[in-house]
Amino acid sequence: MGEVKVIEIKKSIFNANEEDAAALRKELKEKKIFLLNLMSSPGAGKTTTLVKLINNLKKDYRIAVMEADIDSDVDAVKILNGTGVKAIQLHTGGMCHLDAEMTKQGLDNLPEDVDLIILENVGNLVCPAEFDTGACKNMMILSVPEGDDKPLKYPLMFQVCDIVAINKIDCLPMFDFDMDKVKEYIHGRNAKAEIYPICAKNGKGIDELADCLRREISEWRK
Amino acid sequence: MGEVKVIEIKKSIFNANEEDAAALRKELKEKKIFLLNLMSSPGAGKTTTLVKLINNLKKDYRIAVMEADIDSDVDAVKILNGTGVKAIQLHTGGMCHLDAEMTKQGLDNLPEDVDLIILENVGNLVCPAEFDTGACKNMMILSVPEGDDKPLKYPLMFQVCDIVAINKIDCLPMFDFDMDKVKEYIHGRNAKAEIYPICAKNGKGIDELADCLRREISEWRK
Repeated sequence: MGEVKVIEIKKSIFNANEEDAAALRKELKEKKIFLLNLMSSPGAGKTTTLVKLINNLKKDYRIAVMEADIDSDVDAVKILNGTGVKAIQLHTGGMCHLDAEMTKQGLDNLPEDVDLIILENVGNLVCPAEFDTGACKNMMILSVPEGDDKPLKYPLMFQVCDIVAINKIDCLPMFDFDMDKVKEYIHGRNAKAEIYPICAKNGKGIDELADCLRREISEWRK
Repeated sequence: MGEVKVIEIKKSIFNANEEDAAALRKELKEKKIFLLNLMSSPGAGKTTTLVKLINNLKKDYRIAVMEADIDSDVDAVKILNGTGVKAIQLHTGGMCHLDAEMTKQGLDNLPEDVDLIILENVGNLVCPAEFDTGACKNMMILSVPEGDDKPLKYPLMFQVCDIVAINKIDCLPMFDFDMDKVKEYIHGRNAKAEIYPICAKNGKGIDELADCLRREISEWRK
């Protein structure tokens, strides 16, 4: 339990974020490291999905995880115990998102001999969507209990995400959630978004989602 | 569907928020209006809970609702259609929270001959907790699918809330959610928090929650 490194992230000066993000992406491209920015509401299942995804991908890639949270290190401990990969905890000091400079502070605490780094952003559908972290791709998880109207209410989040996983599909019978409608709403925000229904708990759909990441990583390394 | 008034909220100057909030609360006290600030993650069930609560309370009080959202007016329409009470939609223009000055902009668009005004804040566990809206009491909804660890990860939200409703308890058998543990975590943040397990969908626990608000309103009017 004590093995997780906790980094206290300092607030960066905001106005150069786009340049910082572009510079970080260029650096990652040169190093052939794929950085995935993972976002969702609180409790949508980011950490559980990550554990399943990493156990699928770790035979092919060297993986590290940065867990951003306002407080606690429960997520980094869960990743470490559930997958064995390197996981560090970033404490945002109450901040509601990460920007590129803050992401860089985390990366500086990870080894460079990795292929895939996953940043688990703060659980929030609003602010993280507004800040480019410098990641190669953005992915978000919408969980069935949250409702199919979320793309209408948090449009920017769906607009900036390349991959949308719809989690907790084992709960579909209990909720009034229309899968066709949510796909239509998501594609209304971002016509190119790839959508993957999954159940992180029982593993359903994880293979397909992992294969999507394999394609993205291979594209990035070209 | 076209009857809901939509107000575009302007950003206020932040540094005087505590004074603005105190002034607004004083004004509400003089007018014997009880303003409740309702917060939660996206999709925790704020609007559905409000419909049930209002239908319980509307025989005793004149009620109005302000629905804050980044975009869309689906919530205000749902309140209007589900309860018949006055509901206005506040568009925050991408902002992740409301402060006292923004709340005032909404109140200025409501009639003064009301007893209870409910502000449904932006779905977000981070930023809304940081800004005093001027409300008489703060209430939040945590839904079972989000997990029992949320008070550890979003401590400030639980610290500032007087009333915590635990929603979607009909889903308890499907989720690994420990009710005793969550109560302990919540009381660790705020020993005085009143906790009400509810299911907004089937109405369970709504009477108890409504009675809690009746007590708060009567206390406020003294």
